[in-house]
Amino acid sequence: MKTPLQFHITAKDTKSKARTGRLALPHGEVNTPAFMAVGTQATVKTLAPEDLSTAGCQIILANAYHLSLRPGDEVIAGLGGLHRFMGWEGPILTDSGGYQLFSLAPLARISDEGIDFQSHLDGARMMLTPERAVRIQENLGPDIAMVLDEPLGFPHTWDEAGQALSRTTLWAQRAKEAHSLETQTLFGIVQGGGFEELRARSARELMALDFPGYAVGGLCLGEAKVETESLLDAATDVLPLDKPRYVMGMGTPADLIRGIRKGADMFDCVMPTRHARRGNLFSWRGRLSIKNAAHAEAPGPIDPDCGCHTCRKGYSRAYLRHLFQAGETLGQRLMTIHNLYFYQDLLARAREEINRGCFSSWAEEQLAGPLGRDPEGPPGGGGGLRRDRAGRLVSGVSARD
Amino acid sequence: MKTPLQFHITAKDTKSKARTGRLALPHGEVNTPAFMAVGTQATVKTLAPEDLSTAGCQIILANAYHLSLRPGDEVIAGLGGLHRFMGWEGPILTDSGGYQLFSLAPLARISDEGIDFQSHLDGARMMLTPERAVRIQENLGPDIAMVLDEPLGFPHTWDEAGQALSRTTLWAQRAKEAHSLETQTLFGIVQGGGFEELRARSARELMALDFPGYAVGGLCLGEAKVETESLLDAATDVLPLDKPRYVMGMGTPADLIRGIRKGADMFDCVMPTRHARRGNLFSWRGRLSIKNAAHAEAPGPIDPDCGCHTCRKGYSRAYLRHLFQAGETLGQRLMTIHNLYFYQDLLARAREEINRGCFSSWAEEQLAGPLGRDPEGPPGGGGGLRRDRAGRLVSGVSARD
Repeated sequence: MKTPLQFHITAKDTKSKARTGRLALPHGEVNTPAFMAVGTQATVKTLAPEDLSTAGCQIILANAYHLSLRPGDEVIAGLGGLHRFMGWEGPILTDSGGYQLFSLAPLARISDEGIDFQSHLDGARMMLTPERAVRIQENLGPDIAMVLDEPLGFPHTWDEAGQALSRTTLWAQRAKEAHSLETQTLFGIVQGGGFEELRARSARELMALDFPGYAVGGLCLGEAKVETESLLDAATDVLPLDKPRYVMGMGTPADLIRGIRKGADMFDCVMPTRHARRGNLFSWRGRLSIKNAAHAEAPGPIDPDCGCHTCRKGYSRAYLRHLFQAGETLGQRLMTIHNLYFYQDLLARAREEINRGCFSSWAEEQLAGPLGRDPEGPPGGGGGLRRDRAGRLVSGVSARD
Repeated sequence: MKTPLQFHITAKDTKSKARTGRLALPHGEVNTPAFMAVGTQATVKTLAPEDLSTAGCQIILANAYHLSLRPGDEVIAGLGGLHRFMGWEGPILTDSGGYQLFSLAPLARISDEGIDFQSHLDGARMMLTPERAVRIQENLGPDIAMVLDEPLGFPHTWDEAGQALSRTTLWAQRAKEAHSLETQTLFGIVQGGGFEELRARSARELMALDFPGYAVGGLCLGEAKVETESLLDAATDVLPLDKPRYVMGMGTPADLIRGIRKGADMFDCVMPTRHARRGNLFSWRGRLSIKNAAHAEAPGPIDPDCGCHTCRKGYSRAYLRHLFQAGETLGQRLMTIHNLYFYQDLLARAREEINRGCFSSWAEEQLAGPLGRDPEGPPGGGGGLRRDRAGRLVSGVSARD
């Protein structure tokens, strides 16, 4: 069976693991490294599909868990699948939702069979198995589906990480056996918690199952940035060079640059969209808070050098601040368009630097500049999965929105 | 001094007072009868200027009272005026805000000098005079400004209505004397409460001041529909035929048809926009609530015959319902586009019927059909201004949003 995914490396950096590539999927081609805007509930919050195109988005992410609960994956299947449902004609990747499940349903119980949980919408008791996660995603019909993995919060022990890793491999195998939709690609997810050796082991176990692409999960959940890098490094040292690697839930502009340096090809994060709705705006000059009184009478755009719709149409910082203060959703939309455009611009620039062989020095320069000084930490200024005093996984915020 | 407003009647109905006209303003021409979308805070809620154009909007309304408090009319003046501030290049009318002031600041005290009130944003004590209302609107720079009038709730006595009428005339005179912006037209506002004779008197008093256009205020505040019609009739019987008449805060599709029949040229109401945000959708077939479970799996658009962006792009009722249920603002935006398009379509159709001499029979047909069966009452299902037990004006909802 021919895989519905073709991946070609187009250039490699000589001083790091960075590379550019072209990912051909049923709904279009994606230049990598690529950033996927997060559209959890079949909409990137506040935006319509044409806004995504205008912002330069090539591929977006939706969440199988959320959509299976509302409106229901079978409803979406009956309406012709996720692409037609939301009116986005480009590639889509869906996350299986193990992470969301734990962050939204803290009383979830995990066993080898699957995850027993209560719906965060109505409290109904349900079971998500690797097979059910595949079935949901076959109903939704994205270009790329993800296996169900076992989420692991920080801190955790070697044994806990090893158990979650083993279960994730077991589930990946079951998912692969259950998956039969020929127009869809299934990715495995590397786990292994905070231990490099376990990350490498997880990668090797998944490779034995021969997935067409691999994600690295369970990062950016509260561990130090330097630790994130070495854990990612441990995985990409093992993963095959000719398959796409997707780092889940990452991150700040600086995180993306570091991730690219470690050989990552795909990213997703709520950061640009969620921050936009809170009035935090990204640019090459660093971050800006539209709430700041300094913008109250500012006639200029967010960034005069920015090519996004919001900046080019001439919306002033004063107007955006007014919309924000007045609670008008137009402001959220215009700022979301700007932040997503910035993220796409950042990735386009990184690809360009890789292609012309200058990525490493460019990356160092960026990390030493305004982007490197960006406030750290997980999106929303806290959150990620962690263990409470009773040892249960809890979460302040969901990393997908 | 040449007035910055030219109004030409282009056709008259033979069986009613309906007429079509062309209103030339500094920022463009408006075909009348026209419906103005309400953009209280310098944005028609959820929409960008290009959405307004797509929906067929010719002229929009903003609120001087709201904008003077936030971000401040002088701030907007410093940024080049309201058009540049919000990025809408077409005509704008601003309401002076007397009505909003009473509905949002119930402790307002009225005297011949003006209205003494507390800001609904921070409780600051302020005074709005006829001169200040003019000054604010000169700062904002819309094509059409409104005089400050004295709002009057229902029920009220002849004497109360007469006093409010007299004060409104007095204030109209002061506003006219204070107004000097040559690129802006100032409209007077007919009051007179629930008494036809007072409506006629108010119109005559204002005509003595020779305004380039006249609004009829204080309607649709809880009185019976039949009463609204006769009160409007009393005003348009007196008002000059060659000047535009604007009926403030009206109304349902059926209200608009009845208003046109009584010779109205301009309308504004929150109904299409506010209802859209609540999932109530207008169409020639009548109203539809997107919340209805019947739409959960409906693959078709809101109205297959509708030419709006939302219906033509193929957004299904199932998707719109999902967005509504999930609290996604994209749904509010797509539904607002639909409702505004419907209102513009309704007015375009009315103009066409007047032009071809068939308005009266068409209007009767419409009022006997789905549009005539539309739920009655003020927007939001209650509200409007009324008196509480202590005789103070109170309001459940504001008729401008």
